[in-house]
Amino acid sequence: MPTIAYFGPQGTFTEQAARSLARGEHLVPADTIPAAMRAVRAGAADAACVPIENSVEGPVAATLDGLAEDGPLVAVTEALLAVHFSVLTREDAGEIRTVASHPHALAQVRHWLEANLPGAEPVATASTAAAAVAVQQGQYDAAVTAPVAVEHYPLRVLATGVADVADARTRFLLLRKPGTLPEPSGHDRTSVVAAAAHSTGSLAGLLTELAVRGINLLRLDARPLKENFGYYRFFIDFEGHIAEPRVGDAVAALRRRCNNVRFLGSHPRADGAPSAVEPGTGNDDFTDAADWVDAVRRGERA
Amino acid sequence: MPTIAYFGPQGTFTEQAARSLARGEHLVPADTIPAAMRAVRAGAADAACVPIENSVEGPVAATLDGLAEDGPLVAVTEALLAVHFSVLTREDAGEIRTVASHPHALAQVRHWLEANLPGAEPVATASTAAAAVAVQQGQYDAAVTAPVAVEHYPLRVLATGVADVADARTRFLLLRKPGTLPEPSGHDRTSVVAAAAHSTGSLAGLLTELAVRGINLLRLDARPLKENFGYYRFFIDFEGHIAEPRVGDAVAALRRRCNNVRFLGSHPRADGAPSAVEPGTGNDDFTDAADWVDAVRRGERA
Repeated sequence: MPTIAYFGPQGTFTEQAARSLARGEHLVPADTIPAAMRAVRAGAADAACVPIENSVEGPVAATLDGLAEDGPLVAVTEALLAVHFSVLTREDAGEIRTVASHPHALAQVRHWLEANLPGAEPVATASTAAAAVAVQQGQYDAAVTAPVAVEHYPLRVLATGVADVADARTRFLLLRKPGTLPEPSGHDRTSVVAAAAHSTGSLAGLLTELAVRGINLLRLDARPLKENFGYYRFFIDFEGHIAEPRVGDAVAALRRRCNNVRFLGSHPRADGAPSAVEPGTGNDDFTDAADWVDAVRRGERA
Repeated sequence: MPTIAYFGPQGTFTEQAARSLARGEHLVPADTIPAAMRAVRAGAADAACVPIENSVEGPVAATLDGLAEDGPLVAVTEALLAVHFSVLTREDAGEIRTVASHPHALAQVRHWLEANLPGAEPVATASTAAAAVAVQQGQYDAAVTAPVAVEHYPLRVLATGVADVADARTRFLLLRKPGTLPEPSGHDRTSVVAAAAHSTGSLAGLLTELAVRGINLLRLDARPLKENFGYYRFFIDFEGHIAEPRVGDAVAALRRRCNNVRFLGSHPRADGAPSAVEPGTGNDDFTDAADWVDAVRRGERA
């Protein structure tokens, strides 16, 4: 059975994402995001499930850095999870005086706590799952956790669907070593990371290579290079699949323009939104134009 | 005396930055980044000191969002601080069995802890300063804090300059309501936030407006719009001061192209790096060219 390493511990949103992306496979928690990636690179796992982007917090720095460094990994599928927390207590819980969770989770349910558990003191733990463990051990009275936590820790569910921002979402990737790519679906995301030359207009040049081919940008994140503050690498997501002529042409142009481009995957988007294609920039347009140039070169057309 | 609200509590890196940016002024901690900004908007404080970017973690989401929403605030100066932690204990401390700090701080000193306090258990707290309080109260044995913490909490300094990544740095801004701008220095940063039209090539178009004027990009962050995952606003920093002809010209072009542009400040860069100017894109070039067009319009030149 294939083994999937996920950013643990058990009972977090990433486990929940791994279950949806790798149904029935053997799931193993890793201590950190880099550790989950290392497991795949070392062959100890077949794939890794990690968060990439949250609609409130933004990009997940450790995932971006991990994709750019060491051996290449490629995303083959993605999941989009609503960030709705559960609040768990012990069966024998009396008055709730302390509520534990990761500081980010506590920040995302502050209004709910003020309205529903106004007397309870928030307490920081290293993860949402660590909060569940601490409640189980009697250290605190309630934990703010991912819904899946209750399947690991025998606690009482006090509330579900808890979130101050109703439509907060996190996107997760399933990463593998380079191999057969998923088939194009018509609603794909292609991702690359590029270290643009440090000269005026270099990023504008990269994005223009996409724009002139009618390719819609999905996201762009700049990450500082650790060794040189003020220098960045760019994570660029755009519509389409590298198997398509228009996308292959654009990715080749990025490769020409950059010191360093790494392909991070072409796979269907979880939201199913189809790629936009502007007049003159469809795959048929690219194929027809290339055929015409070939015919001109052979002296058959003009 | 002017009052400066900073993202607290007392004893964190932001207090340290506020001390360096607003020497001798009255510093008041705020509970959150939005609360520090609200204090300025409401007139309760003259300025706010908040973190904007860390070389390891990336941009500070709460600061970016706070700059784009509600009443406008403008950065007037910046500080760049090395993220070097201190490790504090009680005077009477015996063996160190627990080390408390914010999870991000613990992550940044993990190797140091493994090498120097191998038996100690890391414990998460809501902030680095909360860890110092917990140590003072006897709850834990050691705290990983900002260097300034020891000035508020009478603890013993076990180690200073602690950091796994030696040159990790955080940049902080001092924000005010719009008013007189700092004078151009020749090594300035100008910042704007723009909601680009959701059409293919819109971001490429914005960056090209900078590139064709020879203006070097300093950073670019995309932040998802909370109400609409997949739509972004762009925080764009570039070299130069809006008082310069070349920069004013570029900012006017961004204003034309976008639904919504907000000016976030022009002020000297903490690293003092001078702005690059390419041939034909200096301020004199812009002024001379505009004068020539005026003369042509008057029929005096051709």
